[in-house]
Amino acid sequence: MADVSPLARPFPDLPEVAGCTRGTATAGYKNWTRADVTLLAFAPGTSVAGVTTRSKCPSPEVELCRRHLPWGSARGLVVNAGNSNAFTGLKGAEACARQVAEAANLLGCEPAEVFAASTGVIGVPLPQEKAIAGVQAAHAALGTASWLDVTRAIGTTDTFPKAAAREAVIDGTTVRLVGFIKGSGMIAPDMATMLGFTVTDAAIDPALLQALLEAANGRTFSCITVDGDTSTSDTVLAFATGAAGNRPLAAVGDAGADAFAAALEDLCRELAQLVVRDGEGASRFIEIRVSGAVSDASAHRVAMSIANSPLVKTAIAGGDANWGRVVMAVGKAGEPAERDLLSIRFGGIEVAASGMVVDGYDEAPVTAHLQGPEIDIAVDLGLGDGRATVWTSDLTHGYISINADYRS
Amino acid sequence: MADVSPLARPFPDLPEVAGCTRGTATAGYKNWTRADVTLLAFAPGTSVAGVTTRSKCPSPEVELCRRHLPWGSARGLVVNAGNSNAFTGLKGAEACARQVAEAANLLGCEPAEVFAASTGVIGVPLPQEKAIAGVQAAHAALGTASWLDVTRAIGTTDTFPKAAAREAVIDGTTVRLVGFIKGSGMIAPDMATMLGFTVTDAAIDPALLQALLEAANGRTFSCITVDGDTSTSDTVLAFATGAAGNRPLAAVGDAGADAFAAALEDLCRELAQLVVRDGEGASRFIEIRVSGAVSDASAHRVAMSIANSPLVKTAIAGGDANWGRVVMAVGKAGEPAERDLLSIRFGGIEVAASGMVVDGYDEAPVTAHLQGPEIDIAVDLGLGDGRATVWTSDLTHGYISINADYRS
Repeated sequence: MADVSPLARPFPDLPEVAGCTRGTATAGYKNWTRADVTLLAFAPGTSVAGVTTRSKCPSPEVELCRRHLPWGSARGLVVNAGNSNAFTGLKGAEACARQVAEAANLLGCEPAEVFAASTGVIGVPLPQEKAIAGVQAAHAALGTASWLDVTRAIGTTDTFPKAAAREAVIDGTTVRLVGFIKGSGMIAPDMATMLGFTVTDAAIDPALLQALLEAANGRTFSCITVDGDTSTSDTVLAFATGAAGNRPLAAVGDAGADAFAAALEDLCRELAQLVVRDGEGASRFIEIRVSGAVSDASAHRVAMSIANSPLVKTAIAGGDANWGRVVMAVGKAGEPAERDLLSIRFGGIEVAASGMVVDGYDEAPVTAHLQGPEIDIAVDLGLGDGRATVWTSDLTHGYISINADYRS
Repeated sequence: MADVSPLARPFPDLPEVAGCTRGTATAGYKNWTRADVTLLAFAPGTSVAGVTTRSKCPSPEVELCRRHLPWGSARGLVVNAGNSNAFTGLKGAEACARQVAEAANLLGCEPAEVFAASTGVIGVPLPQEKAIAGVQAAHAALGTASWLDVTRAIGTTDTFPKAAAREAVIDGTTVRLVGFIKGSGMIAPDMATMLGFTVTDAAIDPALLQALLEAANGRTFSCITVDGDTSTSDTVLAFATGAAGNRPLAAVGDAGADAFAAALEDLCRELAQLVVRDGEGASRFIEIRVSGAVSDASAHRVAMSIANSPLVKTAIAGGDANWGRVVMAVGKAGEPAERDLLSIRFGGIEVAASGMVVDGYDEAPVTAHLQGPEIDIAVDLGLGDGRATVWTSDLTHGYISINADYRS
């Protein structure tokens, strides 16, 4: 087992969310005794929204979520850990469909109201009998699993359980939002898979929930990277039970929609950052802010070019104030940039401006900043108003050990 | 000093190229006694062509080459090692211009006929006095430096000198081509810089030489990657002295142009592969062939997505037959791909087809292939006739050590 990440956060106190019950069970997808099947049951009338991987080779679970999302209604969520069921052909698709059908049968709903996600080994079809027995046992256990239990049950090689909560007031009614997520711990031959789920008791129309989730995703989950590799199974789902009894939100302009949107985005940001904090081999949490780009989208691409650069990530791992590698990563992004307008700050300290190192540059305070666990890199391109912020981890021997030294 | 790469090749016997003389000298850009300034002098009438980095933040040397290339004529090449002069503002541009002017003065030619490249530390202006004294000393030494001498003098943290030669017959006349290159060994804060130079005694019009070099580049230097990071200084220049006395080549259809183009591309391919063999921390040389794409360009992007994936590269480093990571990298490339049409081979052995692992898959021969130093990955997308081949190295603890453990 990997040690707990040095960037870990304690598991928070999480409120109950009315209209959602939880159960876990052991299907035994691997040779272990831990819970590896999770079932969440939702009250009738629960809205659902989701975003899934852009991979052209998605898992059958991702394809099932994409088929079910347009209906907008959810009664159940099944999550399998230890087997991603990805790239398993018709056999894997059938196993996924049968497990979801069994969940629908147990919950007394339509299969289209059940969502599924799996994470773990790729290329091995989900074993049907274990999957069905597992979801039956998880159903029998509904009401017995804590948020911590389900967060642990969806994890694979995560080194700590990751969850968060927020509140919002909608037209006088307080609503709760809870999110839990699994991140990018993995062993060969697993993919760095991110599965994230949020549950709220707010009443909200699924189309609006989808719009707010997509907006939040664009500023949170889409702004993190550990190694630039995109999983075949990445899935984020948002469920809203409506049990809080607020006047249902249906449009962006409705009273309280802003507050809910802000709480959802804030929740997603914390979950996204927790994934980075558990990035494989991570020893430093890095925030990269790019401003002065020709557009926000351009700023995002420049920021991701920096965040995904092995040379930048290894320099940070070495505590090296190597702003030249940041210049390189800006230059290779393919976005509009002018060398002689570029400025770069580490930990708020300007190191380069107008195409060269600043006069009287003193590396000592910058190096001191780089010794800490939280690194701040700011780049201004000096061209326009476009800006973006992304988060990543450093690239260490730990990453190589996790991904090269262990065999499947 | 890093150990010699396990993938190193012996330095070959190289012929003289009439019309080109060489000198080296020690400018002392670092605290060392080795030669770090190289001057090549070319006979009047020498043609030149070049391709440079796509970085938006190029070095002044790259900008100078871009300004001089349209004139098509070369009398000199100056290469500095130990200081890349990149991101050094006006001061660096002035140092570059003054060194080139001095070389032109010594060679009795126009500054526009002199080309320059520098590699090494970023952000420190090239010291003018050392640069000028260095090029003067290299000029005084013209005729005394071997190909091995100049190959060593342009290197930085390369673990072995890299050069190659070819011949071609143009309309009955044998011409010689020699190339030498520095690759992606580096220490912080240096960039993985590739500088490559070819010299031939063929007579060829600069416009045709440029067209042939660009074509060769697209299938050779543009098809290698070590870490996906693009230098601010990457430069490939081709010089043709015309001393062989062949009927000058001016158009693609001229007799012998095909033979020369083939020799040039073959030379560039060997040089490019040598750079991969000296990739930082490389323990395996990986050829990735993608076929069945909707176009050659699409195949190239899929192949580079596989070649740049940290998860694929660490799997190879670990000798792990992890075809799931290849699926992931195909999926994330953003190019047309159908999971259920995909097939994957390692070392010629089919491991996955039609969206799933092959029946009766035996990992043993695949794992045996992966224990060797030369790895072959073939992916067929099953969609069209597009194909591409790229080369890369694996991602090892050695890469992290080189780039994180040492300080600038």
